[in-house]
Amino acid sequence: MTGKLTIVGLGPGDAELTTPAVTEALRTATDLVGYETYLARVALRDGQKRHASDNRVEIDRAMHALALAAEGRTVAVVSGGDPGVFAMAAAVMEAIETGDARWRDLDVRVEPGVTAMLAAAALAGAPLGADFCAISLSDNLKSWETISRRLVAAASADFVIALYNPASKARPHQLARAFELLQRHKSGATVVLFARAAGTSSAALEITTLANATSKPADMRTLVIIGSSTTRLIERTAAQPLVYTPRAEVVRP
Amino acid sequence: MTGKLTIVGLGPGDAELTTPAVTEALRTATDLVGYETYLARVALRDGQKRHASDNRVEIDRAMHALALAAEGRTVAVVSGGDPGVFAMAAAVMEAIETGDARWRDLDVRVEPGVTAMLAAAALAGAPLGADFCAISLSDNLKSWETISRRLVAAASADFVIALYNPASKARPHQLARAFELLQRHKSGATVVLFARAAGTSSAALEITTLANATSKPADMRTLVIIGSSTTRLIERTAAQPLVYTPRAEVVRP
Repeated sequence: MTGKLTIVGLGPGDAELTTPAVTEALRTATDLVGYETYLARVALRDGQKRHASDNRVEIDRAMHALALAAEGRTVAVVSGGDPGVFAMAAAVMEAIETGDARWRDLDVRVEPGVTAMLAAAALAGAPLGADFCAISLSDNLKSWETISRRLVAAASADFVIALYNPASKARPHQLARAFELLQRHKSGATVVLFARAAGTSSAALEITTLANATSKPADMRTLVIIGSSTTRLIERTAAQPLVYTPRAEVVRP
Repeated sequence: MTGKLTIVGLGPGDAELTTPAVTEALRTATDLVGYETYLARVALRDGQKRHASDNRVEIDRAMHALALAAEGRTVAVVSGGDPGVFAMAAAVMEAIETGDARWRDLDVRVEPGVTAMLAAAALAGAPLGADFCAISLSDNLKSWETISRRLVAAASADFVIALYNPASKARPHQLARAFELLQRHKSGATVVLFARAAGTSSAALEITTLANATSKPADMRTLVIIGSSTTRLIERTAAQPLVYTPRAEVVRP
């Protein structure tokens, strides 16, 4: 097994947020494998092959990438954000565990990237300034019972909550259900952020409260952050408020 | 107010993991403010001023940076990792909220970076492949009661848990207490990772179980990850096992 497979994270969108390590892994790859939307962000060099696929076939894509690497190719599996956060790294690991035994001998690496919640937080100020959790609202691979149990646990222990995959055309209802559930366990005054396309030139931030939050502003490119009890706004005259969660649990008066 | 302040995250250590956006913000700054260990990672250009400080004076450092920006300087506040995750962004926001009212009119930005848990996860495989939370074990700014409540909530809802600031000379006991607590709420077979200096040339990974975990391998440069009930190892003959958490809550037999 002489092939090599690197799972890379492009970051949230802007090329200026892709690490040099990822850029180098993309440059040296013979084959790029990934969801077509992410591959479209990578400039091909001469002789490099692109293997684009739809968004819903992570395991097939991972097996294809491993098979290419097993043929001796140098493969980059391309994720948005960070490959380890609700992206391709876990799918590749699953394929290694259940697939061809020789795949375990391949040189497999993961190159981290800026995941969506960090870009969303940077856009707002510092809402992840205290303990936080990240939950994917997609119920393709887990039950709503598990998702709701985690939402309630996060609310009860006063974590800041980052919601990945809050809504898609196939799943329009989860986010509204999540807000309903959280409204029973958290103050209606809790800060809620909708960060759309954070880390790109079309980034937009909407700030509201849990009492007023609806699923309407969310789509596939939105990251939702629900504050802890101490998450707060700093009003400004000439710009959007800054949103942050103090490091201390007891805020100075 | 014509000054500008950008809070940047250098990433976990390796210059190849610093985003071009951060490199550019550092290049154009007239003044760099930060903990001396992080500032030492930045090459100074001619005419640029470095304002280094000790690790324990975040608020003083933030106020100093804001005062420089208010004088019209272009200031970069330098964090390791991502500035929004247990780093300088929240401290700067606190200083803006409580300080000179004119600071609210400054051009304040945050440039995200690769935070330690992402580099640690990449080193291991994909341990953050499902829902996860990040908890700082430092009790400088919050009580042990809050920390333990969050650990128990995270265990009960089966989150993967990333522990920042697991141990320091001033706080050697928290991590052992955290393991003790988690042992009461999670299986002894739960995977535990100690990732030291992940994202640097001296990165090292130790893999153990919760039953066998002690605080010994942890220091200021260590990130600890405690798996969920499904986090697992893929054994390999010629390399360290890969560690990952499947995306699905029910693992295929």
